[in-house]
Amino acid sequence: MPLIDDERFRKTFEAYSEIGATENGGLHRLALSEADRRARDKFAADLRALNLDVRIDEVGNMFASRPGENPEKPPVLIGSHLDSQPSGGRFDGQLGVLTALETLRTLEDHDVTAERPVEIVNWTNEEGSRFSPAMMGSGVFAGELKREEILRTEDRDGVTVAEALEAISYEGDQPCESHDIHAALELHIEQGPKLESEGTSLGIVDGVFSMAWLEVTFTGEADHAGPTPMHTRRDALAAAVDAIDQIQGAPQSLGPDAVTTVGELSVEPNSVNVIPKEAQFTVDVRSADEDVVTEGIERVQSEASSAATRHGVTADVELIWQIPATAFSPLVREACKDAATTANVSYQTMTSGAGHDAKYLNDVTDAGMIFVPSRDGRTHTEKEFTPWAACVAGAETFFHATCKLAGAEIINSSESIE
Amino acid sequence: MPLIDDERFRKTFEAYSEIGATENGGLHRLALSEADRRARDKFAADLRALNLDVRIDEVGNMFASRPGENPEKPPVLIGSHLDSQPSGGRFDGQLGVLTALETLRTLEDHDVTAERPVEIVNWTNEEGSRFSPAMMGSGVFAGELKREEILRTEDRDGVTVAEALEAISYEGDQPCESHDIHAALELHIEQGPKLESEGTSLGIVDGVFSMAWLEVTFTGEADHAGPTPMHTRRDALAAAVDAIDQIQGAPQSLGPDAVTTVGELSVEPNSVNVIPKEAQFTVDVRSADEDVVTEGIERVQSEASSAATRHGVTADVELIWQIPATAFSPLVREACKDAATTANVSYQTMTSGAGHDAKYLNDVTDAGMIFVPSRDGRTHTEKEFTPWAACVAGAETFFHATCKLAGAEIINSSESIE
Repeated sequence: MPLIDDERFRKTFEAYSEIGATENGGLHRLALSEADRRARDKFAADLRALNLDVRIDEVGNMFASRPGENPEKPPVLIGSHLDSQPSGGRFDGQLGVLTALETLRTLEDHDVTAERPVEIVNWTNEEGSRFSPAMMGSGVFAGELKREEILRTEDRDGVTVAEALEAISYEGDQPCESHDIHAALELHIEQGPKLESEGTSLGIVDGVFSMAWLEVTFTGEADHAGPTPMHTRRDALAAAVDAIDQIQGAPQSLGPDAVTTVGELSVEPNSVNVIPKEAQFTVDVRSADEDVVTEGIERVQSEASSAATRHGVTADVELIWQIPATAFSPLVREACKDAATTANVSYQTMTSGAGHDAKYLNDVTDAGMIFVPSRDGRTHTEKEFTPWAACVAGAETFFHATCKLAGAEIINSSESIE
Repeated sequence: MPLIDDERFRKTFEAYSEIGATENGGLHRLALSEADRRARDKFAADLRALNLDVRIDEVGNMFASRPGENPEKPPVLIGSHLDSQPSGGRFDGQLGVLTALETLRTLEDHDVTAERPVEIVNWTNEEGSRFSPAMMGSGVFAGELKREEILRTEDRDGVTVAEALEAISYEGDQPCESHDIHAALELHIEQGPKLESEGTSLGIVDGVFSMAWLEVTFTGEADHAGPTPMHTRRDALAAAVDAIDQIQGAPQSLGPDAVTTVGELSVEPNSVNVIPKEAQFTVDVRSADEDVVTEGIERVQSEASSAATRHGVTADVELIWQIPATAFSPLVREACKDAATTANVSYQTMTSGAGHDAKYLNDVTDAGMIFVPSRDGRTHTEKEFTPWAACVAGAETFFHATCKLAGAEIINSSESIE
């Protein structure tokens, strides 16, 4: 029998899923929006119901600590993020926060004595949909992003992060900086098809892919779609289409885990009867192997240059973001494996193709992650789904891993039932 | 020596070019905008200075008639449009209106007696950039577009044509419908490279290409750019890129004058790390031969369908606009050729790849056009340029053609000098 309370966990998940719910069963809860405020308010109320103080830092990250036996010892930090993509799913981020909440509740249920404090966190703006970049709260916390710059960052309507924090009353007074942390653990959906297709219940994550984002701009000449012969055109979109086709084929030769994605594309002047003057698009390149990502960047540059030559236009390629591969802490990985064994849950070791708050945490402490399966590997869509049994198996493993990392005395499962 | 007043014509052109001028020497004078109002006000004042009454119809088309000797005879209609593309050029449309104005002024200068009235017109919203479709005013006039629907048409901000007309005080009381017209003549820039590259001063237009506009929508699945392997993706943009590449290559097999243009493209959700769920683009297909356009439409449909199959997505192709080829009136063509000979200007007969107000006029009367060269064939850009000598040669020919069509007694050039 699991120690966590399946029914309570499910009801909590359903209640949070109503905040910013979309018609199609997803979430539209952009960072620092009114819906985010309501989710944060509920989270704060749920923590206070556990007699915990809620602390808000300068970028809106929310913390609460369950005391440990030894107040000198640094805490174990658990949590994820409550914000969602536009028309995103209910599991991405939220499931990790609520698994951490259920872990705190279960520790209380069973009066578990832990040597270390267990600290819960909700990171601000992990998704990066409203304010760029993504993983904003954990990035500032880990010292990888500058607080002043982040607070000045604007959304598409010109609203800054500072203004948005104030609008929802989450401009906290705690400094946003890392404190001494023993270990950090985050549960998240896989966002890929591997666990489901291989029939494994959990993924224990050994690291995160190296990633790079590029912006490619082709500049040609605007001209009338009628009287301009095909051979005299300098069509920026024709060049972009040529380059994108090559870039999307590049992973075949880059390596088995390499992926390239063109997610954003815009055309100027974007008029049905005008030959495009400008076409701009982004490329996202990822692999567990940093050298493969570097090779991918070079390929984007060379393919853009070749396409520009073929179409008589100019190409500009800008590297806008790049992060090295992350290796998660063996300490946390081993705790997760032990926990999965304790919970009697099957697992596999895997590398995350997606960035997560835990990635930044790994810069300042021993961090790690547990993945639960994503149906059809789908995420960032309202159709995102994880079977409830998998959520429970993940939460139970997460609870045990937290106990191990916090030096908690675990009650035997059979004792806890009566 | 030309009969038109080169200096006056040039000064008039420069004065109008200041209304809605862009920093780079172009025009930004969208239909029914404040800049359009100022251009219209100046045009009305210039007509009143010739002692002409200015009439405004229900869609804002502006007319004024110089009386003929025989008031029973239908007029010759001359003019073009004063609206521009966003960041468009100074010659497209405006040159045709001012050539017609210079023609009226020259008729007055020399007290020319014409059998028929000569009527000048400025058509509302030829460009279609702010309100779709293009050639709106002449389309309603010719009965090809419905007045009620046009007045309800909204721009991107939800402003209707009726509201925009009222805002600039150009909601006229004259019915917008064709009256009895003997012939219609429009001067316009070529918007293609042919005249310049072949060293001919003028084009006498024998007709307009057949055209079709299509909208192609690919629908796949949104997914995370990191953990989703390339082979499981259903990337709508990848399919669109594949199809566009084929569609842009189609003219090679369709025929020597066929052109296909993808001018608009949008992606959903348009996020750097999300695989596109939807990609939508327009295709503009043109040829002088209607059968070639029909074949082009079929090619767009089959290429979209094949690309959808290759990428595991669905394709929807919608034909949003189609017009047959237009053959201009031999009456007007012959008058133009005679006029070019009189003005001692070289010309070639050519077919227009672009639509023009004269195209709709040809449905209700004998219509025709004169083209002047476009440097590098460029148009719909601030860099649009026609050498002034070519504008003068065009205007002089236009004046003579108008006189011929109106049954005017032309003064001998040598007489007019003293």
